[in-house]
Amino acid sequence: MRRRRLADVNCSVARALDVVGDPWTLLIVRDLFWGRHRFNEFQDSLGIPRNTLTARLAALVDAGVLETRPYQESPPRHEYHLTDKGRALGPVVISLLTWGDEWSDIGEPPVELVDRSDEHVIDPVMVDRVTDRPVAELQLRPRHRHPA
Amino acid sequence: MRRRRLADVNCSVARALDVVGDPWTLLIVRDLFWGRHRFNEFQDSLGIPRNTLTARLAALVDAGVLETRPYQESPPRHEYHLTDKGRALGPVVISLLTWGDEWSDIGEPPVELVDRSDEHVIDPVMVDRVTDRPVAELQLRPRHRHPA
Repeated sequence: MRRRRLADVNCSVARALDVVGDPWTLLIVRDLFWGRHRFNEFQDSLGIPRNTLTARLAALVDAGVLETRPYQESPPRHEYHLTDKGRALGPVVISLLTWGDEWSDIGEPPVELVDRSDEHVIDPVMVDRVTDRPVAELQLRPRHRHPA
Repeated sequence: MRRRRLADVNCSVARALDVVGDPWTLLIVRDLFWGRHRFNEFQDSLGIPRNTLTARLAALVDAGVLETRPYQESPPRHEYHLTDKGRALGPVVISLLTWGDEWSDIGEPPVELVDRSDEHVIDPVMVDRVTDRPVAELQLRPRHRHPA
């Protein structure tokens, strides 16, 4: 019921949450960004029931966020990879990471993100490309577009 | 059970999701960014049961994401405002909005974000402050810090 309602709401935040608005779902997506691809890797990482993991993975494949790729023929086995739509969730995962680093009581952040090309630690921030200012410094308001 | 586990995981994404990993919770936070502050405004906007809304608001106040402010004395009434911790969720909401605009089948994005100072429409993107490159263009990997 709730998923249907969210999918139908005329708001992109609600529609995004219809796909990824579940803690396990976003943690699976995080695991993929962190380089995990196989069912057992997700299970070891997340410690969730197999049937829950199976359902979440199937929903993410169905939503076009993940795709399966075979890696073994007999018995047949496949692993999961992010699609373009899935990789586009990077800023969602990174913004949750940044917020958790700063505002949860986790202490020293346990993970830093490194650029593979030169191994520097990145410093992610969301900016407005028009002014190059961090969005956190702006006073924003939503403006509804009206269809012509 | 699940909330406890997430709160204890040594990962900032999991700890963030322990607080905001629920579709309603993030939609309430979105409503506050969009200028809604009162119980009935959230209810009209979200169409969720009163007891669900009451529980989510109480959890957000308890987590320090929202604070209450009285706006009427008799009968006593209060409204909800984002704390600094809550305003820091701006990039989470905006990254969900951006992803939903691009990847859901919503069509023309129904909302654009406007800077109140000069009314320009912002173009939000997450960049690496070290190189000024969009994080989506980087190949990232997480590196676990080891406590000394």
